[in-house]
Amino acid sequence: MPSFIDELPPLPDGYHIRKICSDDYGRGALEVLKALTTVGEITNKEFEHTIETWARHPEIYHTLVILDLSETVVAIGSVIVESKLIHHCGKVGHIEDIAVRPNQQGKKLGCTLIRHLIKIAGSLDCYKVILDCDPANEMFYAKCGLSKAGTEMQFRF
Amino acid sequence: MPSFIDELPPLPDGYHIRKICSDDYGRGALEVLKALTTVGEITNKEFEHTIETWARHPEIYHTLVILDLSETVVAIGSVIVESKLIHHCGKVGHIEDIAVRPNQQGKKLGCTLIRHLIKIAGSLDCYKVILDCDPANEMFYAKCGLSKAGTEMQFRF
Repeated sequence: MPSFIDELPPLPDGYHIRKICSDDYGRGALEVLKALTTVGEITNKEFEHTIETWARHPEIYHTLVILDLSETVVAIGSVIVESKLIHHCGKVGHIEDIAVRPNQQGKKLGCTLIRHLIKIAGSLDCYKVILDCDPANEMFYAKCGLSKAGTEMQFRF
Repeated sequence: MPSFIDELPPLPDGYHIRKICSDDYGRGALEVLKALTTVGEITNKEFEHTIETWARHPEIYHTLVILDLSETVVAIGSVIVESKLIHHCGKVGHIEDIAVRPNQQGKKLGCTLIRHLIKIAGSLDCYKVILDCDPANEMFYAKCGLSKAGTEMQFRF
């Protein structure tokens, strides 16, 4: 499906997408994640520490942000590229923590972000990309080009 | 559930568990994975390359093998520890590629391996461990202490 990967949907005028950086703390990156789940009170230093952790493993962690005209983060998402032994030492992309600012819903920012993350995984020779979601969100991810694959199981500490 | 994490089930007499190493190529590590999925013909050099990739990220990749009395690999499994922004810069362990040699089934090696991987994730401060499985295997993972959490979606290149 080369066209699906190569033809990325356009962003609204003036919006742009790029890798996350430490300065995105001040651009509201955490507010966007708070729309998704528990984030807690993270200091600028703690934020920078995580960005630095990711930057130490540039072949594994890939986090993108979409910014609007005012340089505010309006969407965020990651793909973690895992090297395996199976599938001839293949790689799998794990899409994680896709979030869109609530007042920016309806602009297909989530799907656009996912398509960019899938493109990154493809460029790094992943044989597949997977993500876990609430069953209520299966339709959304299906619209983004993913299909149902299995069950997520968890153990919480 | 501290007892669940701390009290690991015993292995059969003479069996032992440890981190994977390059020499496990000759001990049948790939044969075990072939019981799980497509592996392909991987050379010793390719195997070593993946082990070295994992070793370059020791805080992320944790792969364990169980060996029998004859020093043959009889089970293998990994936990990938992901650093996140959500949950106060929390970490999640992704359990991947659990496989048991077919003639070694029924000795609870799979569950024992998972319990060891969960313990590693806990010792690294993960707030949860997740894995994706075929719906047919939900009961097996439930017996290992995990519960159903969500749906796995995929995109295949």
